[in-house]
Amino acid sequence: MVIARLCALLLICVSLCTVSAARAEDGYRLWLRNAPVADAAQQRPGQVVLVGIESPTMILARDELSRGLAELFPGGATGRTTPILLRRVIGPQMREGAFTIASMDQGVAITANSDTGLLYGAFALLRELGQGKALASIRLDEAPAYDLRMLNHWDNPDGHVERGYAGRSIFDWWHLPGHVDARMTDYARANASIGINGVVINNVNARATMLEPRYIAKAKALADTFRPWGIRLYLSARFSAPRDIGGLKTADPLDPAVRAWWKAKADELYSAIPDFGGFLVKANSEGQPGPQDYGRSHANGANMLAEAIGNRGVVIWRAFVYAAENDEDRAKQAFTEFQPLDGKFASNVVVQVKNGPIDFQPREPFHPLFGAMPKTRLSLELQITKEYLGFASHLAFLAPLFEEVLDADTGRSGTVADTVSVIAGVANTGSDRNWTGSHFDQANWYAFGRLAWNPKLPSKQIASEWAAQTFSRDPAFLNAVVPMMLASRDAVVDYMTPLGLAHVMGTGHHYGPAPWVADLDRPEWNPVYYHRADRDGIGFDRTATGSDALAQYAPAVAKRLLADEALLLWFCHVPWDHRLTNGSTLWEELPRRYDRGVATVARMGTTWAGLAPYVDQQRHRAVADFLTIQADEARWWRDASLAYWSSVSGRALPAGHEAPAHPLAWYQAQRFPEAPGQ
Amino acid sequence: MVIARLCALLLICVSLCTVSAARAEDGYRLWLRNAPVADAAQQRPGQVVLVGIESPTMILARDELSRGLAELFPGGATGRTTPILLRRVIGPQMREGAFTIASMDQGVAITANSDTGLLYGAFALLRELGQGKALASIRLDEAPAYDLRMLNHWDNPDGHVERGYAGRSIFDWWHLPGHVDARMTDYARANASIGINGVVINNVNARATMLEPRYIAKAKALADTFRPWGIRLYLSARFSAPRDIGGLKTADPLDPAVRAWWKAKADELYSAIPDFGGFLVKANSEGQPGPQDYGRSHANGANMLAEAIGNRGVVIWRAFVYAAENDEDRAKQAFTEFQPLDGKFASNVVVQVKNGPIDFQPREPFHPLFGAMPKTRLSLELQITKEYLGFASHLAFLAPLFEEVLDADTGRSGTVADTVSVIAGVANTGSDRNWTGSHFDQANWYAFGRLAWNPKLPSKQIASEWAAQTFSRDPAFLNAVVPMMLASRDAVVDYMTPLGLAHVMGTGHHYGPAPWVADLDRPEWNPVYYHRADRDGIGFDRTATGSDALAQYAPAVAKRLLADEALLLWFCHVPWDHRLTNGSTLWEELPRRYDRGVATVARMGTTWAGLAPYVDQQRHRAVADFLTIQADEARWWRDASLAYWSSVSGRALPAGHEAPAHPLAWYQAQRFPEAPGQ
Repeated sequence: MVIARLCALLLICVSLCTVSAARAEDGYRLWLRNAPVADAAQQRPGQVVLVGIESPTMILARDELSRGLAELFPGGATGRTTPILLRRVIGPQMREGAFTIASMDQGVAITANSDTGLLYGAFALLRELGQGKALASIRLDEAPAYDLRMLNHWDNPDGHVERGYAGRSIFDWWHLPGHVDARMTDYARANASIGINGVVINNVNARATMLEPRYIAKAKALADTFRPWGIRLYLSARFSAPRDIGGLKTADPLDPAVRAWWKAKADELYSAIPDFGGFLVKANSEGQPGPQDYGRSHANGANMLAEAIGNRGVVIWRAFVYAAENDEDRAKQAFTEFQPLDGKFASNVVVQVKNGPIDFQPREPFHPLFGAMPKTRLSLELQITKEYLGFASHLAFLAPLFEEVLDADTGRSGTVADTVSVIAGVANTGSDRNWTGSHFDQANWYAFGRLAWNPKLPSKQIASEWAAQTFSRDPAFLNAVVPMMLASRDAVVDYMTPLGLAHVMGTGHHYGPAPWVADLDRPEWNPVYYHRADRDGIGFDRTATGSDALAQYAPAVAKRLLADEALLLWFCHVPWDHRLTNGSTLWEELPRRYDRGVATVARMGTTWAGLAPYVDQQRHRAVADFLTIQADEARWWRDASLAYWSSVSGRALPAGHEAPAHPLAWYQAQRFPEAPGQ
Repeated sequence: MVIARLCALLLICVSLCTVSAARAEDGYRLWLRNAPVADAAQQRPGQVVLVGIESPTMILARDELSRGLAELFPGGATGRTTPILLRRVIGPQMREGAFTIASMDQGVAITANSDTGLLYGAFALLRELGQGKALASIRLDEAPAYDLRMLNHWDNPDGHVERGYAGRSIFDWWHLPGHVDARMTDYARANASIGINGVVINNVNARATMLEPRYIAKAKALADTFRPWGIRLYLSARFSAPRDIGGLKTADPLDPAVRAWWKAKADELYSAIPDFGGFLVKANSEGQPGPQDYGRSHANGANMLAEAIGNRGVVIWRAFVYAAENDEDRAKQAFTEFQPLDGKFASNVVVQVKNGPIDFQPREPFHPLFGAMPKTRLSLELQITKEYLGFASHLAFLAPLFEEVLDADTGRSGTVADTVSVIAGVANTGSDRNWTGSHFDQANWYAFGRLAWNPKLPSKQIASEWAAQTFSRDPAFLNAVVPMMLASRDAVVDYMTPLGLAHVMGTGHHYGPAPWVADLDRPEWNPVYYHRADRDGIGFDRTATGSDALAQYAPAVAKRLLADEALLLWFCHVPWDHRLTNGSTLWEELPRRYDRGVATVARMGTTWAGLAPYVDQQRHRAVADFLTIQADEARWWRDASLAYWSSVSGRALPAGHEAPAHPLAWYQAQRFPEAPGQ
């Protein structure tokens, strides 16, 4: 009778737990779900023991691990258990954050010589166990490849996120500092779990108001929340702030009053936030103020701020520049401007370079500045938010894109990964419940963090790690979902910008295809500037007969890039009848690429439909809906693009390809004034 | 051993449940938490049995009840149980949605002659049980007072919510209709639980694009989701749509082509949404287009749309009008314009009137149109979102405000509640996790629904119902929190607009005090227009010696209003030394009122601090933080207002009142360009 009663209670209790879990599957927990491990036979982790002086970060590490293990092994109190030791040791100099995990006599030990090392070790152990690995088999010896692994938020103080597709800013500026939402802790925790240790909380198109006392108080409240998670806070600084809010008549970086203003502002910041990370600056770019407004160089501007910051932090200065008055190929301008400044920047300046020379396109060659500024600390800027890859609604796993640039041989001093000392990612987080606007975009946040920690991690491993923790560690699920993820970015390239095409999207919002746009004020705003299609051919000649952007690369690299058909139309203007290595003409190949992209998306939909048994209903449905939207939009990209190329080239589609659903004029008439993120 | 093992499992399971529950207390579940009832001795509800033909709504009612009961009585499988019958009967004509709950031989029966009646009955039973009432004691016989109980969302297609303080639109316009977020079901469910049966999904400052096919498809997806919950969808219509998107040269309501366009548009809508509710229209008001642009009357405009809609739905036409060219007292203009049109509106037109003659101020007299248009169906428009009462950060329970207007005797045909046939509330929902931007603002959504169902419900009962379901049914908690809620609106009146003051807030965003503003283009945009303070006195003379707005009320009512010192400065311009009934002069009383408001907020903070044992930590902390923000802002309102009145009157503060923290100029210099909701 007692047993029966207990069993009944247990049943109800279990069913309640299940109900809760089912309800909770809205994506909020990201990859930190710690779904129970099924195999009860394996050695279970026991108590977590802290060895060493307790600090807030170490206590977080212990609590995180205890909670995570209890979730992974809900039956943990029974059977044989192995204690987990968190050991803070004074050991050989390792990079801040490094750790080892190994079995010892007393149990499994996570060892580090820094607080954050223990925190990262704790998350690493949970990650391994979360993939179903046996405790006894886990041996890790890790150190982050870079000191600074950071998110750049393009969030404005009014809550709008530029190029944000996941709702409003996750930072509740309006109620800060009076109220720090519980979500801020979850945000810091998610970052810490993948090793991110710096966040710029506001848009590079910065408002000076962010440097006013009212906003410094808000930043301080956030910094205090992030600190125990090993995360330092940075601010985007508007270069004209001394004029905008400082009451000065100039922002000339060589003006003593301006220098004094920035020094005082830096002191004010450090007084509120002792571990303030520094400034990120977008200057003389797309209308932002900068040192050139006063006839000074980027180095003058950066060094002035670096002096104000001193040895307390860094100044990250963006190399994303192109000027209205400059008719040089836009792809060349950053190199032309910054390469000669190599050696002129102060030691606490980092120059931040986008992965490619244009702007986060689905596929670009790596930026020629990598390897070309050996005396300058460089940061690689990746875009996690999918401004040009279908917003949040398209499934495009970006690790292969990130990997492509990190692994690219610069021909000068190793790969891109070898030439940089900082990695930054433009965040895709927002107020949406699932953080990133879609469930699969969480994978891009995850991939960014993992690659910033270890740029040699293969995309496949990252996809598998993420999918196992986020959805299901069942091999049948992973064997289907990982290849789908790995193919997804190429699919986007195929249906949006095949064969090296770029920048053919809608104006302003960057939503949907618009290769026909030719009427914008500045030449380099127009898609026609990039594809240069006419009756005879298509592509941007960047060889010696054209802009010669190719010459900005090391000669061997230039040769390799020129031979890469995936970048054909990036570097060459070719006739429509240009013969590709596979024997087809360009005009024959183009529709094949578009069709291939559309077909891949259709296949993704089928694959996902078959994975329903492994995923809770709410998330499965949401992903399925988004894949349907993506299929429709992939077809739209294909149809609109082919209709336009057909009209420009005067050629009918090759046989065997379906005609576009509408005439070209229909596509040209579409308007989306309410598109997000603008 | 088996028992021990089971006990251990149970313990873990219970603790996991507790962890889940603790995590889940982010406010998402609103008043529908169904926290377990502690008293296991009482008669427990058993199986839920449907009697009658199953319909989607009846199945929802059954499932909702089953799930709710399982949550309320997690040990429900044990002990004596009473079946619950859901009986759909063909009975005497009752208002759609009516139901009874009574004990019968077979169990407790919820009886109704409509599907929605059963749904409302199911929620009513959960509400009663959720307050801790014994099943056997529950007897209800309810019918809604009005056929139409609706929310008006001021949501734009770009996701911005005008006067929204809870994030972005809850409607994910961008991904509709491809993806209908699971939250849409939870939204419909919350509305159904309090009897709301109509929602206008877009802003009265409407964009014509909402009537285009692309948006009709989105609206259809929402309507399909809302339908089983007994909720009909309505659209705000832009009067100039025939010109904006219809290709016509005019929107003249008497033009045959315009009439044909609207008829075709209505047909298109009904073809997509067979139970489409109708249009809400803001015309010739604050820059919106309307029939007067063509020399036609409001009746001409409304009747033209009513003809297009036919007997399929209604046209709700707002009476909120005041014109730039009109120098008549703004408080009089709606009455002047609409009262003479009584009897001229088609039978399916409803004229929607705001609760007071200005604009949702903390306290206004009721609108003189109530009772003055006996041949016209009227809707009472209340504002749930707190545009003028401190946004989401101030705790102000609005049921007393709503009750005040509903109970007001019009002196013509009963109370305001008696003279209207529709109740509408401007929604306070948004994408924030807790729906309304603050936990206590959920109470205003709840109160609106309950009063629209039964305008005679006392505020105290509503507060108690809500708090018991949302936080804790412990009497010690309720005895403290209910009085706090009931006092909160008067506190706002005291620290913002005491003694009948109105419209003294910041320009545009309406955030914070700005009684000094006098430089805006239109006179009635300026706070000084409303308070008319000078060296000699303060207040707007609306008696016969002034604008005589008082004459728009029935004579007995006018007399009563004139005698109400809570509205003194609304109706009268009086000298600073005017003697009040308590013997004080106005100049003595004003700072007392401000101080009283500030003191009440401080007391609310203390009360809440003492309630920590009854509330989960996350919500308790959030409310406490907001109460601190409110205390600071109440003090700001008091200080800035008194500094200004002091400067205008040339009088020092009476003895015993603290001086403002800053000089007047400091308050006047504050700027909040990033304030939400504008």
